[in-house]
Amino acid sequence: MNIHEERLGEFQDLLAENGLDGYIVSSKTDQGFLTGYHMNDYLLFVGRKKAWALLSVMLRDQFLGIAPFCGAVATDNLQAAVMELAASQRVKKIAFDPSTESYLQGSFWKKKGFAEKPGLVSQLRLTKRGEEVKLLRKAGEIASQAFKSVKPRIRPGMTERGVLLMLEHKMQELGASGPSFDTIIGSGPNSALPHHCTSDRVLKNNQVLLMDFGCIYKHYCSDITRTFFIGKPDRKYLEMYALVERAYRAGVAAVRDGVPAFDVDKTCRDIITEAGYGKYFIHGTGHGVGMEIHEAPRLNTKTTATLKTGMAVTVEPGVYFHGKFGIRIEDTVLVTGPGCELLTGGLK
Amino acid sequence: MNIHEERLGEFQDLLAENGLDGYIVSSKTDQGFLTGYHMNDYLLFVGRKKAWALLSVMLRDQFLGIAPFCGAVATDNLQAAVMELAASQRVKKIAFDPSTESYLQGSFWKKKGFAEKPGLVSQLRLTKRGEEVKLLRKAGEIASQAFKSVKPRIRPGMTERGVLLMLEHKMQELGASGPSFDTIIGSGPNSALPHHCTSDRVLKNNQVLLMDFGCIYKHYCSDITRTFFIGKPDRKYLEMYALVERAYRAGVAAVRDGVPAFDVDKTCRDIITEAGYGKYFIHGTGHGVGMEIHEAPRLNTKTTATLKTGMAVTVEPGVYFHGKFGIRIEDTVLVTGPGCELLTGGLK
Repeated sequence: MNIHEERLGEFQDLLAENGLDGYIVSSKTDQGFLTGYHMNDYLLFVGRKKAWALLSVMLRDQFLGIAPFCGAVATDNLQAAVMELAASQRVKKIAFDPSTESYLQGSFWKKKGFAEKPGLVSQLRLTKRGEEVKLLRKAGEIASQAFKSVKPRIRPGMTERGVLLMLEHKMQELGASGPSFDTIIGSGPNSALPHHCTSDRVLKNNQVLLMDFGCIYKHYCSDITRTFFIGKPDRKYLEMYALVERAYRAGVAAVRDGVPAFDVDKTCRDIITEAGYGKYFIHGTGHGVGMEIHEAPRLNTKTTATLKTGMAVTVEPGVYFHGKFGIRIEDTVLVTGPGCELLTGGLK
Repeated sequence: MNIHEERLGEFQDLLAENGLDGYIVSSKTDQGFLTGYHMNDYLLFVGRKKAWALLSVMLRDQFLGIAPFCGAVATDNLQAAVMELAASQRVKKIAFDPSTESYLQGSFWKKKGFAEKPGLVSQLRLTKRGEEVKLLRKAGEIASQAFKSVKPRIRPGMTERGVLLMLEHKMQELGASGPSFDTIIGSGPNSALPHHCTSDRVLKNNQVLLMDFGCIYKHYCSDITRTFFIGKPDRKYLEMYALVERAYRAGVAAVRDGVPAFDVDKTCRDIITEAGYGKYFIHGTGHGVGMEIHEAPRLNTKTTATLKTGMAVTVEPGVYFHGKFGIRIEDTVLVTGPGCELLTGGLK
C-alpha cells in the first residue's frame, strides 16, 4: 500500500474517533502529507471511506497519476463542489481547520453548519516515522555537507549574497529542491539581527559570520546555524561563543522522549542567564521541523508541549549585541527515546 | 520621502475614503508592500496617522531599521497588543481582510466588532508605478536572459532536474533571489501536464520540452513559458505550435488599457477553438503578476476585470494532449495605454 494511502487511512480513523464523517483539508502541507500531491489552489475533502480532490480540470490527470487511491472532481467552484459531494456521498458531520482556512472561506463552511476542528492533520505530522525520518535525515545531511563544502571557500571581499549563492547552489547540487527558508548570511553587525535579510554587504576580516540556512528534500526541511569568526577572534567573541556552545550542548543533551519542551528551553536559558547575558537571548530555543520549517512543538518559555520519540526539533540558543555582533548555534535533532540524533551533523 | 512611507500615506487616504480608522494588514505581501519589511509572523496595524508593527522582540530593531516611519510594539500576544493599541490610540472603526486572515484569527476580530473589508491593500497593488515597473522589468529580463543562456546547452541525456538547476542558477547569477514558483521542466509526455512537477526524467531526442519559470527580483515576480522540440519536429508538433503561437500573438496584440480581460481570453480561445482544439486549452489565458506570482486580474472565461495601464499580466495560451505532449507560450506583459510592453522578451 502506498504510504499516502496508509496515512489517509489513519486520518480517516482519526475522523471516526472525533465523531466526524468528513473533513476539509485546506493547508497545502496537510494535503501533500495525505495524498503526495503538493500543489496550490486545490481542496481535499476527506470522507470516512474515500477522499476527493476538488481542483481545476487542468490538474485532474496529474492528481490521479499521483494519488490514484483518491477521487478527483474538476470544478471552478470549490464551495459548490464540496456541498454537492457532501450531499451525494451523504457525508453529514463535517469539520474544517480554522487555523489554516481563510476567514472568508471558513465563514461559508460555518454557515453550512460545518464544525471547527483545528490541527487534526497536524496531529499525524507531529512525530515522524519511517520514510519521513529518512527524508529529514537526508535534508539535514545536505545542509551539513553544504556548510562543510562552502566554509573553506569563504573569504573577506565576498558579499553576504555571494556566500548565499555558493551555499544554495551546493545544496541543490546535493539534491535539495531549494532552501527551506530565506537563507540568512549575516556578517559583522548584521549577525546581531536574528532574521537578517542577506544583503550585498562585503565580508571584512576580523568579523563574525552567522549562517542560518536549510534545505527542502522531497518536501522535508532542515535547519542549521553556524557562527564563526573571519580572521583572528577577539576575547569577547570567544567568551560569548563558548557560552552559547555550552548552552547549545546542554540543550541537545536535555532532549529525550518525555521531557517537557519548556525544560529544554530552560536548560539553555539558565546557562546564558546565569552568565549575565539572559537579556541578549531574545528568542525561543527551538521549534519543530518537518514538512514545514516551523511547526509544532515550540521550545520556549511558554510552551506546554512534551517531546516525544519521532519529533524533530531545533536547538538554537543565541546572544545578540545590537550594532555589534550575534552568535547562534543550531542543529535539528530527532528525538530517539533516551536521547536524540543530530540530523544536521552537530559541532565537532 | 521613502517610497513605502508614500504608499502607507496613500493607504491611509484609502482608509479615510472607506470610513475606517484602522486596518489590520495580515498578508505578508501587503505588509511588505506598505512597509518594505518582508517577514513572517508579524502583524501591521495601520491607523489614520500612524502604523505599527506588532512583532517579536527579536525583530523589532530590524523592523525599525527598515521602516523608521512606523512604530513597533514587541509582543508575543498579537491579539492583546492590537486591542491595547486601538484603545490607547483611540482607533475606533477597524477592519480586517477576511481573504488573507485565518478563520481563527478573523473570528477574534469579528467578536471585537471589527469589520470585514477584503483586498483594501490589493487595490493599491493592482496597477504598478515607478519603481515597481523597473523591478518587474528586471525580473522579466532575468528570466528571458536565463532562457537564452540555457537553451543552447540543453541536450538529450540531461534530466528535467538538470535543466531546472541550470536555469535557476543562471537566474540567481543574474540577480534573482530565487524562482517565483516551482520551475516546471516538462519533457515528452510530461509537457502535457500544465503544472508538471519537474522530475528526474531523462530528455530524449525528438521530444517536446516545455519550460515554465520565472524569478523574484527585489520582491517582484516574472513568469515566462517557452516550448520547443529537441531534435527534428514532426508535423503535428509544428502545426500545434503554429496554432498556439497565433493565439499567443493575437492575445498580446489585444492587451491595452480599457479592454476587458475576458476579451483577451476570448481572442486566444477563439483561435484555438476555431481550429478544433478548444477542449485541449484547459486553463485561463493569464493572470496578474506583481509581488505575487498569481494576483489580480485574471484573464479567463469568467473574469469581469478590465485591463488598465500599469497592470502586469501573463498571456499564456496552450494545448495539452494527455500522454503525448503539450505546448504553451507565455510572456508577462505590462499594459501601456494603447498596447503593452513585453516584460519577458517575447518571441523573436
